[in-house]
Amino acid sequence: MTSDRTVDLGFARLDVDRAARTGTPEVVFAAGKTPAETVACLAGLLDAGVRPAWATRVDDATAAAIRDRWPEAVVDEQARCAVLGPLPEPVGAVLVLSAGTSDGPVAAEVAATLAACGVDCRRVDDVGVAGIHRVLAVAPDLAEADAVVVVAGMDGALPSVVAGLTDRLVVAVPTSVGYGAAFDGLAALLTMLTACAPGVLVVNIDNGFGAGVAAARIARSAQR
Amino acid sequence: MTSDRTVDLGFARLDVDRAARTGTPEVVFAAGKTPAETVACLAGLLDAGVRPAWATRVDDATAAAIRDRWPEAVVDEQARCAVLGPLPEPVGAVLVLSAGTSDGPVAAEVAATLAACGVDCRRVDDVGVAGIHRVLAVAPDLAEADAVVVVAGMDGALPSVVAGLTDRLVVAVPTSVGYGAAFDGLAALLTMLTACAPGVLVVNIDNGFGAGVAAARIARSAQR
Amino acid sequence: MTSDRTVDLGFARLDVDRAARTGTPEVVFAAGKTPAETVACLAGLLDAGVRPAWATRVDDATAAAIRDRWPEAVVDEQARCAVLGPLPEPVGAVLVLSAGTSDGPVAAEVAATLAACGVDCRRVDDVGVAGIHRVLAVAPDLAEADAVVVVAGMDGALPSVVAGLTDRLVVAVPTSVGYGAAFDGLAALLTMLTACAPGVLVVNIDNGFGAGVAAARIARSAQR
Amino acid sequence: MTSDRTVDLGFARLDVDRAARTGTPEVVFAAGKTPAETVACLAGLLDAGVRPAWATRVDDATAAAIRDRWPEAVVDEQARCAVLGPLPEPVGAVLVLSAGTSDGPVAAEVAATLAACGVDCRRVDDVGVAGIHRVLAVAPDLAEADAVVVVAGMDGALPSVVAGLTDRLVVAVPTSVGYGAAFDGLAALLTMLTACAPGVLVVNIDNGFGAGVAAARIARSAQR
Amino acid sequence: MTSDRTVDLGFARLDVDRAARTGTPEVVFAAGKTPAETVACLAGLLDAGVRPAWATRVDDATAAAIRDRWPEAVVDEQARCAVLGPLPEPVGAVLVLSAGTSDGPVAAEVAATLAACGVDCRRVDDVGVAGIHRVLAVAPDLAEADAVVVVAGMDGALPSVVAGLTDRLVVAVPTSVGYGAAFDGLAALLTMLTACAPGVLVVNIDNGFGAGVAAARIARSAQR
Amino acid sequence: MTSDRTVDLGFARLDVDRAARTGTPEVVFAAGKTPAETVACLAGLLDAGVRPAWATRVDDATAAAIRDRWPEAVVDEQARCAVLGPLPEPVGAVLVLSAGTSDGPVAAEVAATLAACGVDCRRVDDVGVAGIHRVLAVAPDLAEADAVVVVAGMDGALPSVVAGLTDRLVVAVPTSVGYGAAFDGLAALLTMLTACAPGVLVVNIDNGFGAGVAAARIARSAQR
Amino acid sequence: MTSDRTVDLGFARLDVDRAARTGTPEVVFAAGKTPAETVACLAGLLDAGVRPAWATRVDDATAAAIRDRWPEAVVDEQARCAVLGPLPEPVGAVLVLSAGTSDGPVAAEVAATLAACGVDCRRVDDVGVAGIHRVLAVAPDLAEADAVVVVAGMDGALPSVVAGLTDRLVVAVPTSVGYGAAFDGLAALLTMLTACAPGVLVVNIDNGFGAGVAAARIARSAQR
Amino acid sequence: MTSDRTVDLGFARLDVDRAARTGTPEVVFAAGKTPAETVACLAGLLDAGVRPAWATRVDDATAAAIRDRWPEAVVDEQARCAVLGPLPEPVGAVLVLSAGTSDGPVAAEVAATLAACGVDCRRVDDVGVAGIHRVLAVAPDLAEADAVVVVAGMDGALPSVVAGLTDRLVVAVPTSVGYGAAFDGLAALLTMLTACAPGVLVVNIDNGFGAGVAAARIARSAQR
Repeated sequence: MTSDRTVDLGFARLDVDRAARTGTPEVVFAAGKTPAETVACLAGLLDAGVRPAWATRVDDATAAAIRDRWPEAVVDEQARCAVLGPLPEPVGAVLVLSAGTSDGPVAAEVAATLAACGVDCRRVDDVGVAGIHRVLAVAPDLAEADAVVVVAGMDGALPSVVAGLTDRLVVAVPTSVGYGAAFDGLAALLTMLTACAPGVLVVNIDNGFGAGVAAARIARSAQR
Repeated sequence: MTSDRTVDLGFARLDVDRAARTGTPEVVFAAGKTPAETVACLAGLLDAGVRPAWATRVDDATAAAIRDRWPEAVVDEQARCAVLGPLPEPVGAVLVLSAGTSDGPVAAEVAATLAACGVDCRRVDDVGVAGIHRVLAVAPDLAEADAVVVVAGMDGALPSVVAGLTDRLVVAVPTSVGYGAAFDGLAALLTMLTACAPGVLVVNIDNGFGAGVAAARIARSAQR
Repeated sequence: MTSDRTVDLGFARLDVDRAARTGTPEVVFAAGKTPAETVACLAGLLDAGVRPAWATRVDDATAAAIRDRWPEAVVDEQARCAVLGPLPEPVGAVLVLSAGTSDGPVAAEVAATLAACGVDCRRVDDVGVAGIHRVLAVAPDLAEADAVVVVAGMDGALPSVVAGLTDRLVVAVPTSVGYGAAFDGLAALLTMLTACAPGVLVVNIDNGFGAGVAAARIARSAQR
Repeated sequence: MTSDRTVDLGFARLDVDRAARTGTPEVVFAAGKTPAETVACLAGLLDAGVRPAWATRVDDATAAAIRDRWPEAVVDEQARCAVLGPLPEPVGAVLVLSAGTSDGPVAAEVAATLAACGVDCRRVDDVGVAGIHRVLAVAPDLAEADAVVVVAGMDGALPSVVAGLTDRLVVAVPTSVGYGAAFDGLAALLTMLTACAPGVLVVNIDNGFGAGVAAARIARSAQR
Repeated sequence: MTSDRTVDLGFARLDVDRAARTGTPEVVFAAGKTPAETVACLAGLLDAGVRPAWATRVDDATAAAIRDRWPEAVVDEQARCAVLGPLPEPVGAVLVLSAGTSDGPVAAEVAATLAACGVDCRRVDDVGVAGIHRVLAVAPDLAEADAVVVVAGMDGALPSVVAGLTDRLVVAVPTSVGYGAAFDGLAALLTMLTACAPGVLVVNIDNGFGAGVAAARIARSAQR
Repeated sequence: MTSDRTVDLGFARLDVDRAARTGTPEVVFAAGKTPAETVACLAGLLDAGVRPAWATRVDDATAAAIRDRWPEAVVDEQARCAVLGPLPEPVGAVLVLSAGTSDGPVAAEVAATLAACGVDCRRVDDVGVAGIHRVLAVAPDLAEADAVVVVAGMDGALPSVVAGLTDRLVVAVPTSVGYGAAFDGLAALLTMLTACAPGVLVVNIDNGFGAGVAAARIARSAQR
Repeated sequence: MTSDRTVDLGFARLDVDRAARTGTPEVVFAAGKTPAETVACLAGLLDAGVRPAWATRVDDATAAAIRDRWPEAVVDEQARCAVLGPLPEPVGAVLVLSAGTSDGPVAAEVAATLAACGVDCRRVDDVGVAGIHRVLAVAPDLAEADAVVVVAGMDGALPSVVAGLTDRLVVAVPTSVGYGAAFDGLAALLTMLTACAPGVLVVNIDNGFGAGVAAARIARSAQR
Repeated sequence: MTSDRTVDLGFARLDVDRAARTGTPEVVFAAGKTPAETVACLAGLLDAGVRPAWATRVDDATAAAIRDRWPEAVVDEQARCAVLGPLPEPVGAVLVLSAGTSDGPVAAEVAATLAACGVDCRRVDDVGVAGIHRVLAVAPDLAEADAVVVVAGMDGALPSVVAGLTDRLVVAVPTSVGYGAAFDGLAALLTMLTACAPGVLVVNIDNGFGAGVAAARIARSAQR
């Protein structure tokens, strides 16, 4: 392995060559870090030449600290992401479907991640299976996508239906939307893992970032 | 309460007036009973005038013991039910949908229960959401039913879709079909409890009997 | 399907013909939405002619936003529901029993839902099985109902007892009332799913809305 | 502590003074032991003067080995218990209720344990809450008991009702009877732990032995 | 049943004869009730002649409302209990052991309940098994008690050790003290249910009230 | 939708145009079906022109029934798959890694699925992270693959490490290999869902079929 | 890393330098392998010079296959281990305590592992906390041990008590002994993880091998 | 046992000879105690001659109360520990690795505990397996340590990799860092318990204190 520079900040050891190895740079996961720690990590990535440098799960205090240091930072409040540096020119096409309006923040994280990875996306929200005509209405869009990301909480049934309509890979993101037996996303997670249609791959609950990275890899692979 | 005769068999106390109180007679749950115990319970019910007398979860040894005592017994092997005495003249109409062929035994228990309760049913198997056109094809049948029973394992997504297509009550039966994260029916159970469409009511995993009794009550209520 | 108009608000796609298909209009689930989003959804429903237009899980800020926009809105604070437009003339009769005073908000959501669906209800609270005479005292009321909704937290034992006293369908609503091994309603949910009496159908924990819609369908079906 | 003799068998260290300390002798739990190990433990207890010497969870092979060694052994097949030596003269009165016929083996273990502990018991089986009159019919017996043991699987609702009818302590035994969401007794266990009536104390699933020992202590205490 | 007066407050139906049936009056569970509701329930009980009238899980606002209405109310802040009316003259003797200082509030609820039930108690706190000599030091006290209540969180190991030292019934109360794999009391609950010594009976997590009522019944039974 | 022919076998409704819609034909899931049902489904698919026709989770009796009907059937005993009809000419390249020898059957199902989907695969078994040099040794192979499938039970740690070494999508398959806290694959499933490296997508426990279909889609997409 | 030879058997890749890196050779986990695969792995290890070569979780068929190939193999049937080649000269001293006779097979696996690792052990079985004097009796042995392994199922309370009596590290092994709320070892696992005494470290349920390896490392470290 | 003095504070019973028995003094667990209780416990320990006296899980209010009473107290805010009295002269060498920056507070608790126990430690943070070169870079440090503590949340994969590189004991600490399927540390806990490399021992989630005590015992044992 030649792509293995590490920048040591003491409390963090930045893997600044990760993009060279994996196609995606190390991204700062701000949850559980102080605003100062997140800012220091972003600064370390920028110093090492990582572009864009980027943080997820950014709360209000962290967003303020980032804007304070870098007034040019682009903060997407719904997606809770902050991005520094020019975005890549987008290629490919990913379709992002969400089952309900409350799934919006996770769908926004998917979209922001795709943008940071340099992939175009089209987002259609509130396509729940309780009105199946809304799902059938997006069938033509499926054929034009390199990959489909489906975001759903509660019963998590949407990926099963979508995967029966397309030969594209479906990246399923369970969300913590719901109450009671939804068990903070567990119900949707299990539904997606046991989807009766093949072609559904699953990420962690509320993990819009992971879904975005995966969809970007598929899209770029299809563009090669 | 005047409908409260109890027949005491020592190991069992038969609630022989249950039909008068609840519309459904006490039914013998054969799992966990010896064949001799199940036969004795059926005999006790017959002696008290209960017609039909009826047992569920009947295994092969119990079925043999029942046939040995009552050669005229009707045993439905897929449904694992045994029925003694004439069935009521059927009324009403219940539609029973199952998501996959492996859900067949539970759907059969629903159908056998409806027959014993005196309600007509139409059964359509293998209507999985992975081929959504199969679901849409039954839409006209929904309008003609007094109630719909939907039987599904794995992702349990079918009731959510069906409930968005009809104003009939949907009785959802999760099954233990599946593996891994299906957790013996838990995934389907949680999916159905969190269905994004209202009008879905849920029974225990593999409880075709309970679903049948409930659907029969709705059908008879609609016929009154 | 001809009843499939969708009103696209960008962040939401309203299924404005849902009442034509399923008998119940799309209802705004306000949890996870901003007050502005809930107001916009209600406005969209009203614009499309949906009456009543209605939101559940309405917190104080959302209730204020609704009242600000529509001073005539009827907000039921215990039930956390807001309703716009005239209620239908009520028909039928549903009996709503709750096991304890703390289950009141969920029972209120059931009652508010029945009202919005145009079905009459009678509510009797605090009918716990620890004083079984309180349950026996409502037995005469059971015979006059089209359906019974039973709301209970903690041990969730009430539906099992009620279902042994009536031939009406029992819609059981577990609540998150309790502590420790109640596990936020899980204990009551499992109790209800394994009720030893048939005729019990279960909805999600705290899902008074779903129980109300289901009971309304039974009541209207019995009135046809 | 002066009551602390230990008999060392190598693979087991018998606590032969346990009756002197706790009122109940060490009892051999045969599950997970070979028949030869169980026989050796019983022999060791007899050698040390323990009377009766006694084993629970005895399977067929172990029962045969015990009978082979001690033809006078009393083996209760439903309870899966084997007892050697004279039983104490019974005192007191414990009422043992079971909710269904399938709970019989656990109720039998309670009864056999009470007999070995020298306490009289009256057993009434199949007193399910789905026929509440069957429960009310035993109310007079409650007043004559020193303690009540209630054995129930599935929804486990019986102890909640019984405890509302009596000032006696209710020892609740959940059983693994049921399927699906009964989760091998978990549903009944949680129901009993969250019983809305105080005065309910709970033992492990299927633990008829523990319930019997506890009820015997209460009965003997009341007789002092 | 002749002891079955019900006082109907609309939002609550007070079971004012419960003490006549079960030896313990209906007690107001204040969690999930508004301060006004708790005050109204207490007033209803007092009006019906219940003495003492009593509430558990009383938070600061509720305590203030009670004191405002009845300046003579006795509020135990650690136990979160409020009692109105003279306490019974105490009889008997219950030993209350807690494993750690953090279990104090639950042990206090046990003690307050015993006082309201008219039973004397001795409380010894912080008797953890990690210093086993502290447990052995209380052995003489065990012999003088009518019953023993053991309160423990984290590993919940104390009841197993205590039950091996005494012939008294051990009422075990798991607490939600701990973190991580303690899972809010689940670890202690399971430990107590699977205690290797018989004579351990278990109540819900943090349920000091239930343990107190049960121990009081044993103590009074031993005094008869 | 024009690709929606259904072949109705009564107990099954074959979705014979699924390949046209999704790129993968309906495949017979033999678990829960009788051998005769599986044979009938395969015959129905062949009659409708599906090639190859193919069944998974084939046990010995079903394999015998298939060979009896079609002596030319190719049955992979480790993978428990049966395939009828010529395989497509393989394209692309998928690398299949397994963490231990016991994961072999699941890795075999991945490989058999890829073959049936017309994609080439290279399989390297027993690449556990406890000997990290074994993982590093396959790093050059990663760069030549269109996608990587990683099969692992027990701690399920392998995908996290592999995803840090490559820009290819990692399809992670947890297996039920292990004991105790492995909880039949749950531990590995959770590990993979929470992998600290992005680019990991997860399928159900032991779902080699789903992983193979997904990897085939990626490979074919990269070849377009 | 220079200690990284891999022997490739196709279905397995033996990490034959593991002892050089970690002090313990790769050991064959026979569960999930065919007898032939286990024999081949052992042969591969022997060929590479590993002594002793050794397999765990050996069932009867595998034991027979090993003895057939190597008549000199030492098979410990209680421990389900097979060892080939001379054992190291033992050093150090580990005390292995088990709480009950049924925990014997796991304690035997610990002892067999220690022997294969070249460490002496003393094993004392059936030291349950229900007879606390049996625990206190081993206190002198604790001081002479380099480390203590404590094996316990059911309530898993023994490590908490032992760790309060010694300054030696306590390696706790939960076992799957028990029933009901023991949940196949989960109760004991949680108890040990939340032990109120520090100095307790935990391995997987029934993992006698892991505990033996760990204790051997401590013992050898103390002997250095 | 001669080392068994207890200091009785009423609400607490201090085990002031614990260091003599176990090598580690009783340490005050401040969570669930009031600041005044924690201060009183520390004062009691100091009075009894315990040095250092020490509290963990110290929140801001408790830290302030400690500083107020003992201005010389050393409070480590990241570790949430307060220490009174001179630290022992450090011996030995423990390597503390953490997988991510967010695991810092737990790693800090490990380090603070080692210091209080008189053992030297070297801490390297943010050594995640997603950049495996960062792990390989610490391999030389492993050989110089007496023991290794590995702190990791999310997938918890780091201990499996580290244990394959060293013959030192690995004490694994799962943390509650992560979201969704991390289930507050459960995922990492299960991963570590099922680690495919032996030599991994596990403590409770976030239990840096327990890990520090255990590592200190190993280090001191190696120095004897």
